[in-house]
Amino acid sequence: MTTTSAGRGLRPAAGAAAGLPIAPSAGRWRPLGLADVTIDGGFWGERQALNHDAIIPHVDHWLEKLRWTGNFDRAADGTVATDRAGREFSDSETYKLLEGMAWEIGRSGDEVLEARFHEIAARVAAAQEVDGYLNTKFGRPGQHPRYTDFEWGHELYCFGHLIQAAVARARTVGLDDVLVGVALRAADHVCREFGPDGRQNIPGHPEIEVALAELYRVTGERRYLDQARLFVERRGHGTLAAIDFGQQYFQDDVPVREADVLDGHAVRALYLAAGAVDVATEDGDAELLAAVERQTRRTLARRTYLTGGMGAHFEGESFGADFELQPERSYSETCAGIASIMLNHRLLLATGDAVYADAVERTLFNIVATSPADDGRGFYYTNTLYQRFEGQMPDLDAPSVRSFSAARPPFFAVSCCPTNLTRTFASLGAYVATHDDDGVQLHQYAPSTVRAAVAGGEVHLRVTTEYPTDGYIVVDVLAAPPGDWALTLRVPSWAVGAVVHAGGAAAPAEPGYITVPGPRSGGRVELVLPMAPRWTYADPRVDAVRGQVAVERGPLVLALESIDLGADVSLARVRTQEPPVADGDRTLVPVRTVTLDDADWPYAAARPAGVDPEAGERLVPLIAYHQWASRGPSTMRVWMPEVCS
Amino acid sequence: MTTTSAGRGLRPAAGAAAGLPIAPSAGRWRPLGLADVTIDGGFWGERQALNHDAIIPHVDHWLEKLRWTGNFDRAADGTVATDRAGREFSDSETYKLLEGMAWEIGRSGDEVLEARFHEIAARVAAAQEVDGYLNTKFGRPGQHPRYTDFEWGHELYCFGHLIQAAVARARTVGLDDVLVGVALRAADHVCREFGPDGRQNIPGHPEIEVALAELYRVTGERRYLDQARLFVERRGHGTLAAIDFGQQYFQDDVPVREADVLDGHAVRALYLAAGAVDVATEDGDAELLAAVERQTRRTLARRTYLTGGMGAHFEGESFGADFELQPERSYSETCAGIASIMLNHRLLLATGDAVYADAVERTLFNIVATSPADDGRGFYYTNTLYQRFEGQMPDLDAPSVRSFSAARPPFFAVSCCPTNLTRTFASLGAYVATHDDDGVQLHQYAPSTVRAAVAGGEVHLRVTTEYPTDGYIVVDVLAAPPGDWALTLRVPSWAVGAVVHAGGAAAPAEPGYITVPGPRSGGRVELVLPMAPRWTYADPRVDAVRGQVAVERGPLVLALESIDLGADVSLARVRTQEPPVADGDRTLVPVRTVTLDDADWPYAAARPAGVDPEAGERLVPLIAYHQWASRGPSTMRVWMPEVCS
Repeated sequence: MTTTSAGRGLRPAAGAAAGLPIAPSAGRWRPLGLADVTIDGGFWGERQALNHDAIIPHVDHWLEKLRWTGNFDRAADGTVATDRAGREFSDSETYKLLEGMAWEIGRSGDEVLEARFHEIAARVAAAQEVDGYLNTKFGRPGQHPRYTDFEWGHELYCFGHLIQAAVARARTVGLDDVLVGVALRAADHVCREFGPDGRQNIPGHPEIEVALAELYRVTGERRYLDQARLFVERRGHGTLAAIDFGQQYFQDDVPVREADVLDGHAVRALYLAAGAVDVATEDGDAELLAAVERQTRRTLARRTYLTGGMGAHFEGESFGADFELQPERSYSETCAGIASIMLNHRLLLATGDAVYADAVERTLFNIVATSPADDGRGFYYTNTLYQRFEGQMPDLDAPSVRSFSAARPPFFAVSCCPTNLTRTFASLGAYVATHDDDGVQLHQYAPSTVRAAVAGGEVHLRVTTEYPTDGYIVVDVLAAPPGDWALTLRVPSWAVGAVVHAGGAAAPAEPGYITVPGPRSGGRVELVLPMAPRWTYADPRVDAVRGQVAVERGPLVLALESIDLGADVSLARVRTQEPPVADGDRTLVPVRTVTLDDADWPYAAARPAGVDPEAGERLVPLIAYHQWASRGPSTMRVWMPEVCS
Repeated sequence: MTTTSAGRGLRPAAGAAAGLPIAPSAGRWRPLGLADVTIDGGFWGERQALNHDAIIPHVDHWLEKLRWTGNFDRAADGTVATDRAGREFSDSETYKLLEGMAWEIGRSGDEVLEARFHEIAARVAAAQEVDGYLNTKFGRPGQHPRYTDFEWGHELYCFGHLIQAAVARARTVGLDDVLVGVALRAADHVCREFGPDGRQNIPGHPEIEVALAELYRVTGERRYLDQARLFVERRGHGTLAAIDFGQQYFQDDVPVREADVLDGHAVRALYLAAGAVDVATEDGDAELLAAVERQTRRTLARRTYLTGGMGAHFEGESFGADFELQPERSYSETCAGIASIMLNHRLLLATGDAVYADAVERTLFNIVATSPADDGRGFYYTNTLYQRFEGQMPDLDAPSVRSFSAARPPFFAVSCCPTNLTRTFASLGAYVATHDDDGVQLHQYAPSTVRAAVAGGEVHLRVTTEYPTDGYIVVDVLAAPPGDWALTLRVPSWAVGAVVHAGGAAAPAEPGYITVPGPRSGGRVELVLPMAPRWTYADPRVDAVRGQVAVERGPLVLALESIDLGADVSLARVRTQEPPVADGDRTLVPVRTVTLDDADWPYAAARPAGVDPEAGERLVPLIAYHQWASRGPSTMRVWMPEVCS
């Protein structure tokens, strides 16, 4: 079954093979994809290499070992009804791996990976039914019928990830691809089944919305966008079951354009909001865009961890109330971080507001970089900000449940995060830069090359930096058009005191975006971001970290780990009269440890004693939060109690 | 089917009709039951009346409305396989109601309630199978076979509650009772099925252990105790499934006598620990008793809320780590409070240590008293210490899920708490006093009468008090034996500065137990507990309330409610230089409210501004925590941030 879509007469949209994860037709800035941006080593280049060398093969291995990819073979040969492996959404893991492979092939041109992609895609294609339906869990003799469980069935969710994988393929190798054909048949099936005259249902887990919107952008077929809009607009009317977690779990408690804040299941909320931005952008629906902006801003201001993590509760994997941001057992799912990046990147393209690029950076460095182990063979599912106990080592031969210990398990029974990481790492280049007729905008700093068309011709840039180890960023102009063009640089919100050197002069660069005249070919612009470590305090309504302080350095959230303290991190107190100490790349803070007598009861009429002023104080190094537990099981805290002064 | 047990030749154990919920044959002190202690009005008398007048009829109504009690009829007529209502443990709700009714009949002699008890008991009896098995969920044609789901089936859990209801009956009206006969046949079935040569399984939810131990005490039949011991000793070897919540959820991760702290699902942990105390006490198993003491002490010192509530997590309804006691979304299930009282009362009887009686008092006044609405027709399932949002009014016609809002729902889909309250309120008298050969011990203060045998004869006491409104407790001796006897009074741990007046002299009474010579008939002893409101601080390792303070007054935890503040409670700051203000029964604290500008991001490099010293300060009344949301939906906090001084 090697049908291609070429025979359908589809017209590839402009920029179709530019390696763009998303390609809105309107908005403040235009994205630049993998064809135009390469990351050349450094912090993110190393992680892209790790993704290629370790994470993708590791995930592929586990999907075969657990027989989730094998479900497609068993669907094709008719044995899946009695012999299916994994949860109801396991098909999506194979699709997300395919998406990760597709971007990685587009980035690296790896022919071995291309062959593996073809092999899996063919197995997926063989399981598709004649009318385009494709799901290994439903619809065959001995299985529940199709579309009998909108709350938990995840059929449309799986279609969404299938389509996103096909979009990655279309945007890297083009429409003439097996998986693109599969996805188009699936999308056509979805439009027939759920169109204006079809089933009026919505899926329990959003994802189809971003996928259909992007497939519209790939193909120009309006009905895909219309269908995405239908799924967005049908929400919030309580058509899904009112389960224990509340209707907000399914994002069905309030219509998207009426909500004021993201609520309920964090990944569901963020995927839906991203899809709503896509629909709003394509249709010029200012009210819908304003609604998602309103929700996202309040969520960033009141429901987001210092790490960029979202979702406070284990129960229901959901957002907490405003300012309910307990560091202990913060759920902060890796996938919610990825979903937040998807949403914030879309809002950045739509509005040009630096707050969204700041959120992307924070989440990349402190959630996406935190999840994988150094060897790419273990992952955090949740990303707590305070680990009080080391826990036990996870089973290395069986999937774990989320992450209850300090150590990163190799895989999970609900294993959305590792596959989500593969596609995120492989497509990181797409977050670096954008362009418009006037010039080029740099949003994320990494050693990289950027090519972009502006009104007068092509700009070709090379960015050289050790960021985030230091804050010195050099932009060399390798080629520039003859006329004027503008170079816009993001100054992160924390970078108070940044300086830009351009045209032979130095000027202060306020947080936000700073624009300088684009140099001629051979010219250079330098941005110096202040990288001294700094104390960070929370809004006083975040009760859970009252009297505590965190340390950040550049975009990195730092953490105190028991291995460096040599004691229970719950006993550490930091003194904050002076700034944290920078010793080269290391950051140290003055720590005293308190000694507490055990009591029968943890509450007393007397105010707890402060730290003994005679108690020894020493400088203890912090680590980057993303590095924690890299040296073995540990306890760790981001927020540290201050010594009472 | 009106078989009685009389024909079995069972010999009622001593004190069988004394109204004793538990009757250990050994231990430091001997309990006094409902036949010997009456509560005569006051705080707890009002709640016993509410239980009789409202809670029991309300619960009975809902069990019929939801057709859970009706399951027994459908089991008897053979239609239950296709027409069963409720969750897998719903039989236990009817049993717990029957237990509540039995104690209430024993307490009040209500003949209408006695008739209703007979009616329900007959319906239960009709559903029992010939071999003693009884469960409406399993074993009939069309249902799953018996004992095919030890993790979630709850068959032994239901047997446990059936037996506890029968014990209540045996201890109030005697062994000649329909329900006692049903329970004995069920217990015999359990012993046959799960004895040394039978199935070596354990149930997913402990409860059978306390029940069988008590049935042994009622009947003197040793095999019931042996079976209880088997269920205790078989735990901790990982024979139940390793589910997402971890093996500690099922209390199967570590053997009872090896554990150092209560962990996992709180109610399961506490019921099991109570059963282990029963087994240890009957068998003189000092190692097992010491193990449970060790676990309970660490749990009280590190995993218990100020309210006495236990279980921090919604996820898995489980204990958190040591000192992980977040006030926001504290789970603190009502049933865990009741289970904690069961455990602590047993340890008190076994050891005579006041710490356990203190725990009982704290939990009674701040969990058990908090759950029911003033009208007895709504309940808290969870008991949060910080409610940031009012939430929505619960559905008054359908069972709710736990308690996500400020208001108390009328019933729950998993409705363990209301039925548990019925039996707790009806049997409250059993916690008031104990005796031994030397004298009488008073543990809980309420207007009450106490009769107790001591070596020289009978002591008859009348306790008069307005406690907890004031701390003046008068013990009048209505009758006393001719020789010496001792009156022992508990001085709560918080009552620093208490004074006892006895024999014409006043003496300081240190927290713990104080013993005075028992007066002759007509004599009086007075205890004066200091009831000034006091600031309470938490161990500095409880990060979640750092920089915050609570107020207690006597045994009551107080709370700040939005209705009194007239503002968002998250903005309140209290000044603590002077003690809280006592204005008669009212307690007021000096409060300033902070005004905060909304920001795009809740974290900043600057330390948050303290309260403006010019900001208005006013005295705001607190309420008893158990009263919160009595005036309608509100926001509430127990722990209040202090004004930085």
